[in-house]
Amino acid sequence: MRKWIGLDVGGTTIKGAAVLEDGSIVYKEERPTESEQGTPHMLDRMAQFVRDLAKSAGWSFDDVAGVGVGVPAFIDFATGFVERAVNIGWYDVALVDELKKRLGDNIPVAIENDANAAGLGETWAGGGKGFDDALFVTLGTGVGGGILVDGKIVHGSNGMAGEIGHITIDPNGRLCNCGRIGCLETISSATGIVAAAQERIAGEATTLKEEEILSTRIVFEHAERGDRVAQEVVAYAIDRLGFALANIGCTLNPQVIVVGGGVAAAGETLLNQLKDAFARYALPRVTAGTAITLAELGNDAGVIGAALLQVRN
Amino acid sequence: MRKWIGLDVGGTTIKGAAVLEDGSIVYKEERPTESEQGTPHMLDRMAQFVRDLAKSAGWSFDDVAGVGVGVPAFIDFATGFVERAVNIGWYDVALVDELKKRLGDNIPVAIENDANAAGLGETWAGGGKGFDDALFVTLGTGVGGGILVDGKIVHGSNGMAGEIGHITIDPNGRLCNCGRIGCLETISSATGIVAAAQERIAGEATTLKEEEILSTRIVFEHAERGDRVAQEVVAYAIDRLGFALANIGCTLNPQVIVVGGGVAAAGETLLNQLKDAFARYALPRVTAGTAITLAELGNDAGVIGAALLQVRN
Repeated sequence: MRKWIGLDVGGTTIKGAAVLEDGSIVYKEERPTESEQGTPHMLDRMAQFVRDLAKSAGWSFDDVAGVGVGVPAFIDFATGFVERAVNIGWYDVALVDELKKRLGDNIPVAIENDANAAGLGETWAGGGKGFDDALFVTLGTGVGGGILVDGKIVHGSNGMAGEIGHITIDPNGRLCNCGRIGCLETISSATGIVAAAQERIAGEATTLKEEEILSTRIVFEHAERGDRVAQEVVAYAIDRLGFALANIGCTLNPQVIVVGGGVAAAGETLLNQLKDAFARYALPRVTAGTAITLAELGNDAGVIGAALLQVRN
Repeated sequence: MRKWIGLDVGGTTIKGAAVLEDGSIVYKEERPTESEQGTPHMLDRMAQFVRDLAKSAGWSFDDVAGVGVGVPAFIDFATGFVERAVNIGWYDVALVDELKKRLGDNIPVAIENDANAAGLGETWAGGGKGFDDALFVTLGTGVGGGILVDGKIVHGSNGMAGEIGHITIDPNGRLCNCGRIGCLETISSATGIVAAAQERIAGEATTLKEEEILSTRIVFEHAERGDRVAQEVVAYAIDRLGFALANIGCTLNPQVIVVGGGVAAAGETLLNQLKDAFARYALPRVTAGTAITLAELGNDAGVIGAALLQVRN
């Protein structure tokens, strides 16, 4: 099996892994991002990290088939430029060229938006394994998405493919960070669930009042213990997610929808309600053709996906 | 330029054309479908039609690079079987094999759902020319769609990709043919526009009362002549279409959305209102990346798309 190195660059840490073609991790490590020390310093450290990962995996660097990097950024795929990565202070960085300069011209280097890389990782090696047409949904602070068609990431016209968190669901709803009203992520993200719970605590009888700090986990727990308000908050967030995914189902008809991110920690409770909601709103043939699964790779999805970026190109 | 033959099979006629690689038609003709005479008879006539088209175009059949057929049907692309084409009475017809049996094993034959073929035709040679990531929308009796990513038709898990007419828009709206409530096609199709006009004629002052029979064309005409009710009916149908397309825009981020079908005959009136509605609901970066155009090939889109099916595979 070919050997790959993946990096997943975040605001505070860079995750790195030596990964085999089947998505299995041979060795992984995290290092601080140190974005405050500037781009050239970061690029030097990333190149060194790549070489160290190969070494720690017991591989000769010459045996590495290629390197992939996930970045929280808009990317110009034609040129290999990172247009804008706000969290790490990069603007117009020629990431592919800069890494090749440090690692050697012969090593293939690919870059990708980090959410898309995670979607590829989950599709090829995690909750969507065995499927080529997939939608990956992350339910975290926001709602993110990644789309694969024929096993390849869909980028769209200007890198906005998969921005399903900004599908409008409730024109009379909450203000979204994007400046618009009622986007999916104002309802079905962790933030949206907590906001809905807080809005209802004031005027209603609910055990949620006992909590000092609310989180999605806590709201799900109260729902499972029978609190009606918590149950309604959870049910609404999942119903609207199912509604949005059913509409995407009529558009893309994916073989699998993989759900990950913090909210997905609710596991089977979330999954079963979501399957019901999807079936409620999708054409029966779409429901029949779409598996809905939980993500399996956790925090490793991004680095595995980054490593595998070049496998099917 | 390579030479291709395309057939577009409908319930009453089969359109045929000899098409060059750039999508230009050298010769075209229509023949009755004669589905009542059974499948073997139809297959014989289709094969003869293909040979006659080449001849009429002044081509030797040996110079034809391949044949493509659009069928109003679910298709199993792995086997080349037409699963079910209700309009022409086909069930489990091995279309690719049957045509090769009649035309020779060496000639490449491809088949496709007719709406997808039309979408490919419009994207490669019509209103979406120059773009690889496209959404084709037909506004006719229903609302149909075809999706291209990297210049290739997206089929999805079980052939339902592009069924955007069944995106739910108004949970309190009209019953759809699919059995569900408030699908996009109950609002923005010709049928939906006429239904909305009829609902409002009874109780309101409108020049639409003067008409014996309503059609989309007539509703648009009254709107342009200043009738407020007609204007509101048109505005609502286009607003909801723009809303649905904006949500698809956040998912697929196509470079171009090409609008065709009978309703698109309203031309610039439709196009300008639709662009405004899209911009109203889409993220600004999605609006910036998405051109919206009118279809250009009319009834030829399907046969041109069928002919070109194998060009980029």
